[in-house]
Amino acid sequence: MATQLWQKIQAAKKAEQAARIPSEWKLPETALPPHGTVDLRPYAASSGILSDRELHITEKYDATALAGEIAKGTFSAVEVVTAYCKRAAVAQQLCNCLTEIMFLDAMEAAKRLDVEYKKTGKVVGPLHGVPMTFKECFHVKGYDASDGYISRTFEPSTYDSYLIEVVRSLGAVVIAKTNTPQTMLVAEAENNVFGRTKNPVVSHLTSGGSSGGEGSVLSFKGSALGIGTDVGGSIRIPAAANGVYGYKPSFGILPMLKYAASNWVGMNTGIPAVCGPLARSMRDLTLLSRAVREVKPWTADPALIPNIFELEPVDRRPVVGVIYQSGLMLHPPIRRGIQEAAAKLKEAGFEVKEFTPPDFQEIRSVAAELFTIDGLSYPKRELEKAGEPVVESVMKIGHWFKNPKTHEQVWELNAKKGELQKQMLDCWQEAAIDIVLCPAGPHTAVPPNDWYSDTYTVSWNVMDYPAVIVPFTTADPDKDPKDWTFVPLSLENRKVQALYGPELMAGAPVALQFVGPRLGDRQLLKDAELLDKVLNN
Amino acid sequence: MATQLWQKIQAAKKAEQAARIPSEWKLPETALPPHGTVDLRPYAASSGILSDRELHITEKYDATALAGEIAKGTFSAVEVVTAYCKRAAVAQQLCNCLTEIMFLDAMEAAKRLDVEYKKTGKVVGPLHGVPMTFKECFHVKGYDASDGYISRTFEPSTYDSYLIEVVRSLGAVVIAKTNTPQTMLVAEAENNVFGRTKNPVVSHLTSGGSSGGEGSVLSFKGSALGIGTDVGGSIRIPAAANGVYGYKPSFGILPMLKYAASNWVGMNTGIPAVCGPLARSMRDLTLLSRAVREVKPWTADPALIPNIFELEPVDRRPVVGVIYQSGLMLHPPIRRGIQEAAAKLKEAGFEVKEFTPPDFQEIRSVAAELFTIDGLSYPKRELEKAGEPVVESVMKIGHWFKNPKTHEQVWELNAKKGELQKQMLDCWQEAAIDIVLCPAGPHTAVPPNDWYSDTYTVSWNVMDYPAVIVPFTTADPDKDPKDWTFVPLSLENRKVQALYGPELMAGAPVALQFVGPRLGDRQLLKDAELLDKVLNN
Repeated sequence: MATQLWQKIQAAKKAEQAARIPSEWKLPETALPPHGTVDLRPYAASSGILSDRELHITEKYDATALAGEIAKGTFSAVEVVTAYCKRAAVAQQLCNCLTEIMFLDAMEAAKRLDVEYKKTGKVVGPLHGVPMTFKECFHVKGYDASDGYISRTFEPSTYDSYLIEVVRSLGAVVIAKTNTPQTMLVAEAENNVFGRTKNPVVSHLTSGGSSGGEGSVLSFKGSALGIGTDVGGSIRIPAAANGVYGYKPSFGILPMLKYAASNWVGMNTGIPAVCGPLARSMRDLTLLSRAVREVKPWTADPALIPNIFELEPVDRRPVVGVIYQSGLMLHPPIRRGIQEAAAKLKEAGFEVKEFTPPDFQEIRSVAAELFTIDGLSYPKRELEKAGEPVVESVMKIGHWFKNPKTHEQVWELNAKKGELQKQMLDCWQEAAIDIVLCPAGPHTAVPPNDWYSDTYTVSWNVMDYPAVIVPFTTADPDKDPKDWTFVPLSLENRKVQALYGPELMAGAPVALQFVGPRLGDRQLLKDAELLDKVLNN
Repeated sequence: MATQLWQKIQAAKKAEQAARIPSEWKLPETALPPHGTVDLRPYAASSGILSDRELHITEKYDATALAGEIAKGTFSAVEVVTAYCKRAAVAQQLCNCLTEIMFLDAMEAAKRLDVEYKKTGKVVGPLHGVPMTFKECFHVKGYDASDGYISRTFEPSTYDSYLIEVVRSLGAVVIAKTNTPQTMLVAEAENNVFGRTKNPVVSHLTSGGSSGGEGSVLSFKGSALGIGTDVGGSIRIPAAANGVYGYKPSFGILPMLKYAASNWVGMNTGIPAVCGPLARSMRDLTLLSRAVREVKPWTADPALIPNIFELEPVDRRPVVGVIYQSGLMLHPPIRRGIQEAAAKLKEAGFEVKEFTPPDFQEIRSVAAELFTIDGLSYPKRELEKAGEPVVESVMKIGHWFKNPKTHEQVWELNAKKGELQKQMLDCWQEAAIDIVLCPAGPHTAVPPNDWYSDTYTVSWNVMDYPAVIVPFTTADPDKDPKDWTFVPLSLENRKVQALYGPELMAGAPVALQFVGPRLGDRQLLKDAELLDKVLNN
C-alpha cells in the first residue's frame, strides 16, 4: 500500500522531533536497553549522556529543593536546564514521552536567568531556573499545539497560553511539551502524530493518560515539574501509573486561559476540565499552585475564583474517610495498598473510618454520556480532515460510538449530575470527615489499550472536588497473588479483573488518592502533605 | 366561544387566591382607586384595612430595623406578620402581585415565634418575625409552584426549597409567593394562570420582571424582604421599575437548591440563574445575604462556593467607573439620573471616571442565543399540554421564534462569551476601578408588553459579576423633556426611544446599578451602601 498523506506528515513530525535533539544527546545503539527490559529508569545513568553532576541535579532534588539550591547559587540555571534537557532527551528516546521539544529555547532562557541573577543577586521568582514540561494542549508561541491530530500539525501557535506566561514570569523554563492520546478522552497517550508513550517503570505497561507524556517524563526525572489537564482523571491516572504526585484542582483555581483545546472550545458539558501539576513531591504541588496564585491570576482569567486558595489552611490531624471500593472491584495490589495505608494511618493515631459514597459506576455513566453529547463530532471531523485512522485505544473505550444527544437529554444528565453531587455532599457531611482516601483506579498500569475505566477518578471531576495522587507501594507477586475467590459483580468487573497478572504487574506503582471538599484545595494540599509524611516517611 | 379547559383552571386558581384573603381584608368598592389612578400606594392607608399601628409597622422600618424592634419586644411577630399580610392583601387586590397566598400559615408561624420568644427571651435568628415573600419559582410544601403554567397548577409541592428552609430557620415568616411571566424569560409579570402584575408607583406602566410580583409587593410595602431570581435582569429590572433595592449575586453565593425551575432543569446554557433579595434598603440586602451565608449553605448545596462571601470587606472610598451608555441609547430620565449621580459622587470627593466596557449589545446578542438553545422546547411543551396561548409580552421579545441550536453552535456561543468575559476583565483591570455605576436599563418602567431589552442587566449575568439596584430619582417632565436632537444609532434604538413620553413616564422610578468584580459580592454590598448614603442621604 502506498504511503498515505497523513503518514508523510507523521514522518515529517518525527523527523522534526529528532532534529530538535542534539546529536551528542542521542543514545548509541550500545546504550539501548535490550528487548524486554522492564525498568527503563536506570538507562538515564548508564546512557553516559549525563555527567555525574547532572545525574545528581536531576535525581537528588524535588523542584522545591532545586529552586532553593539555584537561589543559593549552588547551581546555575544553565546547568540545571542542561541536565534536565539531556535527561528529557534520553526519556524521549526510551519512552517517546515528548511532543514539541524546546531545548534550544530553554537554554537561551536559562542563560538570561543567570545573567539576571548575576546582575541583581536575586532570583526572578520562586521557580527561577526550574525546568518544566507542559502537556501538548498548551500554546507555546512558535511550536505546534496539534494535540496529536495530523490536521493540526505544522501550524505553530501564535501566542503563549496564559499559564505559560505566568510560570515564565516566575522564573520557570519550559523545556518541552508532552504526549497525549487522540481525542484526549482516554487514559493512554497514543496518537498518529507522535505514537505511543511508554511507562518507564514497567515498560510493557501503559503510561496512562491523557497526560501520559507528563507522567512518563516526570517518572524518568526528565522534568522537575509538569502541567497536565484533567476532566476524568487525566492528571491522576498517569501520576498513579508512573509513580509520581499529581493534583487535580477544583475548577477555578488554576488558569486554563488560552489553552489549546482538543475538542469544541470550552466543552461545556457540565464537567469542566482543569489543569494542575504533576511533580516529585507533595510540596512541589503546593509550590507550583501557590506561586501561580500569587500573581492573582483571576485578574487575567475570568474563569478563576479570587482569594479562595489564599485562605490560610489550619493545622490539624484530618479525619480520614476510606473508600475501600465503589463501583469497580480492585486488583489485589490496589486493595492491599488501600488497606495498608488505612492501617498505617490508624497506627499513627489518625481517626480513620469507612466512607460509602454514591455509587461510582453510576457517577461514571453520567460522565461518559456528558463527555459525548455531540457524538465526538470534533475529533471525528479532525481525523477525517487528514484521513487518519482512529487509534485502537480510542476505539476500545466505547465513547467513539456514542450518539449525539438532544439539549433536553443533556439537561436531564446534568440534573442527574446535580443529584449525585447532592448525595455526595450529604454523605460527606453525615460522615463528618475531613478528607477521603480512595484508590486512584481499580488497577495499576495495564497493558496498552486496556485502560478503559476512569471510575475512581472521574467521580471527583463530576463532583468538582480537588484530589491528589500520592505514590505508596508497588505491585508484588508475593504479596498480591491472584484472588481465586473473586466473584465478579458485573461483566465489566470480570473484564477489569481479567487484566490482572501478578508477574505482569510486578513492580507497577500503586498510588493513593486523597480528596478534599470542593474548593477546599489549599487545606487538602496541607492535609495530604501531612498524611504523605506519615505513609512514606 | 365556549370556555376552554385552560380558562376553567385559570378561574379555579383565581378563586383559590380570593378564598385565601380573609373577607375583612377585602377592599370595599368605595375604597377602590378610580380608573386612571397613577399612584396606587396611598390606597394602603386609605383602604382602612390596616390600623395606624399596622401602617406604622409596615411603613417606618426596613427589615433590619424591624427585626431590631421585634428583638427588643416593641412588636410581636404576630402583629408584624398580621400587618404585612393585610398590606400584601391590599397590594394583591390593587396590583395583582401575588401567586400563592399563605396568610393563615404565616400567622400560625408567627404565633410559634412569639411563644418561643416568650419562653427563651431570645429571637430564633436574625430574621425573627420578618415577613418575607418569594418569587413563584420556589417550592413551599403544600402550595403550587406552577410558574404561571396552567399545566403545572393544582400540583402542590411536596417539599420546601432549601432557601425557604434556611430563612425559616432564621426566623423569617413566608407570607406569599409572587408573580412571574410565562417562560420567565421576559421583563414583565404576565401569564395565563395569574394574569398581569401592576406597578404600584405608576400603575399604567409595567412592574417589570421576571420577579415582577416581588418588585410590586415590595414597593407597596406589602413585604419586608423578598427573594427573586435573575438570569438576565429578573431581580434588577423589577427592583428598578418599582423603586426598590435589589441584589443579583455572583453564581455560587446564595442557594437555588431544590427550586422550581421554569425550564429544563439546570438550564445549563453557560449563563447560570441566581437568586437574591429585593428590599427596602441597601443594608437589608446585606442582612439577608449574611444571615443565609451564616448557616454555611455550602454544606447543603453543592453549587455554592464556601468562605468567599465571608472575607471581611475593607473600608474604602471606591473608585467609580461610570458607563454612561453602551449598546442602547438612554431615555432622558435615565441619562439625567446617571449624570446627576456621577456629579454628586464627584462633589463628595470620590474618584469618578468614565468606563467603556465591551459593547453591551454584542454581549446581549450572545445571551439571547444561549437562552434559546433548545428553541424554548420546555415552555412550548408546557403551553401545549394545557392548550393555553402564548401571552403577548412573550411573543413580542422574539425569543419565542428562535430555532434550536446544535451543540457545536452552543460551544461557539460559549467561546464568544468567554472572549467577552476576558475583554471585560481586561477593561476593568486597565481602568483600575473598584465599582461600576451604570443604568439598570435604557428606560424606566414602560407600558405593558413594551419591555424588550435587558441589555444593561443581562450583560452582568454573562459576566457573572454581582450587581445591585439603588433607587435614585424619578422621571420628571420638566427636567426630562423629549430629546429632539435624538439620532437613532439603529432600528432598535429608534424603537426603544419611541417609547419615551415625558408625561407617560412622569413619576416613574429611576434607578442606578452598581456592579462589582466577579465574586466580590461582600465588598460590593459594602461599597454600594456607602455610595447609597452619599447619593440618597
